[in-house]
Amino acid sequence: MKKPLILVSNDDGITARGIRTLVEVMAEIGEVIVVAPDSPQSGMGHAITIGNTLRLSEADIFEGITAYKCSGTPADCVKLAKHYVLKDRKPDLVVSGINHGSNTSISVLYSGTMSAAIEGAIEGMPAIGFSLCDYSSNANFDHTRDYVKKIAEQVLKTSLPKGVALNVNFPPKRNEKVKGIKICRQARAKWQEEFDQRFDPNGRRYFWLAGNFVNFDKGEDNDEWAIANNFISVVPCQFDMTAHHSISILNDEWEIMNS
Amino acid sequence: MKKPLILVSNDDGITARGIRTLVEVMAEIGEVIVVAPDSPQSGMGHAITIGNTLRLSEADIFEGITAYKCSGTPADCVKLAKHYVLKDRKPDLVVSGINHGSNTSISVLYSGTMSAAIEGAIEGMPAIGFSLCDYSSNANFDHTRDYVKKIAEQVLKTSLPKGVALNVNFPPKRNEKVKGIKICRQARAKWQEEFDQRFDPNGRRYFWLAGNFVNFDKGEDNDEWAIANNFISVVPCQFDMTAHHSISILNDEWEIMNS
Repeated sequence: MKKPLILVSNDDGITARGIRTLVEVMAEIGEVIVVAPDSPQSGMGHAITIGNTLRLSEADIFEGITAYKCSGTPADCVKLAKHYVLKDRKPDLVVSGINHGSNTSISVLYSGTMSAAIEGAIEGMPAIGFSLCDYSSNANFDHTRDYVKKIAEQVLKTSLPKGVALNVNFPPKRNEKVKGIKICRQARAKWQEEFDQRFDPNGRRYFWLAGNFVNFDKGEDNDEWAIANNFISVVPCQFDMTAHHSISILNDEWEIMNS
Repeated sequence: MKKPLILVSNDDGITARGIRTLVEVMAEIGEVIVVAPDSPQSGMGHAITIGNTLRLSEADIFEGITAYKCSGTPADCVKLAKHYVLKDRKPDLVVSGINHGSNTSISVLYSGTMSAAIEGAIEGMPAIGFSLCDYSSNANFDHTRDYVKKIAEQVLKTSLPKGVALNVNFPPKRNEKVKGIKICRQARAKWQEEFDQRFDPNGRRYFWLAGNFVNFDKGEDNDEWAIANNFISVVPCQFDMTAHHSISILNDEWEIMNS
């Protein structure tokens, strides 16, 4: 049987521990091509590079694996991989991560990890973003390996509904074993921002974005609940942002429709 | 009656023609505060600034209007406005734009204009992103004024469903008068990328992202159809990206759920 072609990207940059774990696991199940940012791109959301040039060069980082580093965003990486690096070959799977830090709940919008996966879905490829809810650069990814492999193999086997990418989050390594996988919805939560105001040596004001995550969601079917209860959360995500249920409401309420 | 407080941002930067039009129209209906990027931020998607500092300074650009320019992304601008500039005052409306260029269909994901609006919605404020389907820097915004005002007044009057922001696109100015407003869904379309490969004076390769917009959608209820037929498109957008219909499919198909 022909090995599946797997495209790997991330947002922490090509030298991060998380992408190394992902590359190692993917190499056990397919032919791996890596196209990843040459520097950290956390918080880049679905940014793309349009007012600037992009650089791409081969990176001799993973033994026996063809890899490229790119000056752009995670979404740029997937676009370049698809249209330039791979050209006539279409990946059977796009995976992104493993992110150093949570991408549950509202963080999916800000997440470079998930933008690479969503970009894969837009291009019609099954795609998964993996994140570990542990922000440290030397986080322990050992407990994710078996599940990353199982989930990737499952998606290769049964594929995904059209236009859907998976947002997979792992609880941090705890003493207790992970309880299993939960298919979830995105929790209703947000970042409660605070801006840390400081002054530079010239007396000019600047800010650091800071803040706390606030979970408003009382349900047990969402990704925040899953992580808090030591489950792996899997949220199917779509790039159709239409609030379909609101169309009829607006058509009904708006008096300006025929003006 | 107390005037509504209206927060204005954009992604083309505080000196763009589009935001000037928007500020002028909003000043007719409320008290306006502007917090907008100090440089163009097109294609920034929902990026936020987390690895770097943010600058914010007053900008004497719009006569009689309090305005700030910010070194960050559109999403940063709304966060800074809400948590630093306005503090205890909550805007009655957040508007973003008017963008120089279309944000229909899949472009909503890459759009800085819409990320400012979505950020408003996350913060529980009614929010609208306005875009003109004309990319030129000296685009004619005259035909948008009446409708921008009507739509903003409508949203101030009837508000929006919780968690929903509007993506409003105007057709370019044509000889024929705009036909009216259509509440739409996001069209199924994508950018068919091509990368323009060049070499710098040192012989090093670089790329420009280029490409064509391809519309796969045959329906007449989507934003692409509306614009092509000289209607103003209004798409209610949500930041819950869960593909809810896929949850039961995955629960049904996945054999690894209890492993």
